[in-house]
Amino acid sequence: MTERERSLASHMKIAQICPLYESCPPRLYGGTERVVCYLTEELIRLGHDVTLFASGDSRTSASLEAACERALRLNEACQDPLVYHTIMLHRVWRRMDDFDLIHFHTDYLHFPLFAERADKTLTTLHGRLDLPDLPVIVREFSMMPLVSISAAQRRPMGWANWYGTVPHGLPNELYRLGSGEGAYLAFLGRIAPEKGPERAIAIANRAGLPLQIAAKVDKVDRDYFQHTIEPLFQNPLVEFIGEIGENEKGRFLGDAVALLFPIDWPEPFGLVLIEAMATGTPVIAFGGGAVPEIIEDGVTGFVVDDVATAAAAVSMARRLDRGLIRERFEERFTADRMASDYLALYQRVLLGGRKAIDPRLLSLRAAAGIGLSS
Amino acid sequence: MTERERSLASHMKIAQICPLYESCPPRLYGGTERVVCYLTEELIRLGHDVTLFASGDSRTSASLEAACERALRLNEACQDPLVYHTIMLHRVWRRMDDFDLIHFHTDYLHFPLFAERADKTLTTLHGRLDLPDLPVIVREFSMMPLVSISAAQRRPMGWANWYGTVPHGLPNELYRLGSGEGAYLAFLGRIAPEKGPERAIAIANRAGLPLQIAAKVDKVDRDYFQHTIEPLFQNPLVEFIGEIGENEKGRFLGDAVALLFPIDWPEPFGLVLIEAMATGTPVIAFGGGAVPEIIEDGVTGFVVDDVATAAAAVSMARRLDRGLIRERFEERFTADRMASDYLALYQRVLLGGRKAIDPRLLSLRAAAGIGLSS
Repeated sequence: MTERERSLASHMKIAQICPLYESCPPRLYGGTERVVCYLTEELIRLGHDVTLFASGDSRTSASLEAACERALRLNEACQDPLVYHTIMLHRVWRRMDDFDLIHFHTDYLHFPLFAERADKTLTTLHGRLDLPDLPVIVREFSMMPLVSISAAQRRPMGWANWYGTVPHGLPNELYRLGSGEGAYLAFLGRIAPEKGPERAIAIANRAGLPLQIAAKVDKVDRDYFQHTIEPLFQNPLVEFIGEIGENEKGRFLGDAVALLFPIDWPEPFGLVLIEAMATGTPVIAFGGGAVPEIIEDGVTGFVVDDVATAAAAVSMARRLDRGLIRERFEERFTADRMASDYLALYQRVLLGGRKAIDPRLLSLRAAAGIGLSS
Repeated sequence: MTERERSLASHMKIAQICPLYESCPPRLYGGTERVVCYLTEELIRLGHDVTLFASGDSRTSASLEAACERALRLNEACQDPLVYHTIMLHRVWRRMDDFDLIHFHTDYLHFPLFAERADKTLTTLHGRLDLPDLPVIVREFSMMPLVSISAAQRRPMGWANWYGTVPHGLPNELYRLGSGEGAYLAFLGRIAPEKGPERAIAIANRAGLPLQIAAKVDKVDRDYFQHTIEPLFQNPLVEFIGEIGENEKGRFLGDAVALLFPIDWPEPFGLVLIEAMATGTPVIAFGGGAVPEIIEDGVTGFVVDDVATAAAAVSMARRLDRGLIRERFEERFTADRMASDYLALYQRVLLGGRKAIDPRLLSLRAAAGIGLSS
């Protein structure tokens, strides 16, 4: 290891490039921006110098570079989000020499601008990868080092230039172990067919337990919400409480008997799964996408195939050890572990793709506070 | 004028960057791609070396660089057009040194990639410019030399880095003088509220003449078509003939008593206006956007404010001199004139923005075949 490599390991100048749809962290719903926020704070805690490119209403310990005043999703004045992302990426490009490594969370938008300097970039793909046009652009820009957020997500493009899989993580202290004594089932996220809110209601019905739904409704899903889901709210077991913020979420999840996650799509990760785990609440999930990688069947929840099995799992979920669920969260899904994993990959990028250090080893060392120079 | 400038004037290496929604030229509807096609052919006729970046099903005398096999609008396999535009722009970037000048027709998509080499680019903005986010990006990339397609189009952003206005043009021989003896009014283009198909039907009703509608229906307009427009087709005066191709258009326009253009938006240009003029057919148009710059009231048609005046204009339109309308087309709206205008602007870009040669003079010279070296 050269002197420069040693110095980079302990103190890197890192740019995090966050989407502009939500502030960083998001006020309400918003997965990617939240993960970028946790990663940023953790990298700073580890002594690195981080510049965060994000919306102007972000709150961060990093140096903030804002390409728009307010996050775009709930900003009525913004009709074309691509404008602000284009501006942001060009500003990153102009400051390229200020950073050792640039970590993008912006799908493929930055590929053409940074293709010639792929050797100082890492791109985490946060979305589903089984879309028809995506392989075309990933193949064209095969020089870009990529990160997946689960093994399942990566499957449709196993041939791509993957540097690693880094599961998401949450700050250790963000949520506390809850009691699970709220006597309800929880549904948290987004009202959309692929998230299975109808199934959740059917499961609660069969289990004879109230279902609390905390969720946002996107523009594209308004029809579905009005015509398919809203009528089901007449069921006295169902309570819709709308979109909730970070401060309400810990209690909402922690008091629940179980979180229902009856998805009907290849979920690339499912941040809410580890949020529930952080509060000790078991998850009853359908087994699409990354679910089996995150939920340990019979330990942190149950992976099921149909509504009847899901309903039957509710009483079993009550018997799971909530303390152990929290422990599994601390072992596998903290922001600390996520940052260590990413630092190992940053090193690998800067070493020109050479696997000089086993990322797993690096991660363990970093977690133990040993550092790279030892 | 230096030797290099002289040589550039007679023989430039030019890249034309066309959107990928339609082939170049489009099979059916498609304004921007058609204009790029005409410009490309005319530049080649004038002795320049043109590379056309466009969809793979384009037919061109230029050297074709295809970023996708087939045009994207009617290609069911394509869900994300941005993928292919991104790929195309990066391929242009990689070949930048092969060209003296790169002429973009891709809105703002290329701005970040080419900002540092703005001195060899020209961008024609083909769309409406009164959109809320557009000024933000045009201001950020104020180094990009821009061209408007009408004075009206430019108005919401008069402060931008405009190098000139170049109205569209058609190949002189594309359409011939028609008879106007088809005893019907024509509506040609796109079924959308802003194009005023309801008004067109009302005008035809009042005038007591059949209306033939040749138009495409975009996905976003299908609801409008089914619920608002299709029921009006029960009117025996109205005939809907769907989307028509280039070879049918000359006859469709040339046989009509008049073209109706009852728009309800700031039309940036309105290619169909000069298509009608090329067949000698007068236009009865509402006066939004560029209409008053294109239609000479009482000579090539009538600019009106309401349905009643439009209906009254039908009998007056019959008395206009169709030969004179065709003459005005030849004087003002040929591809030859358009190419000369653009060549003058290419020169200005390459001279670093200096107005070394009056574009009008250049245009006249070029049209007369005098050339710059004289």
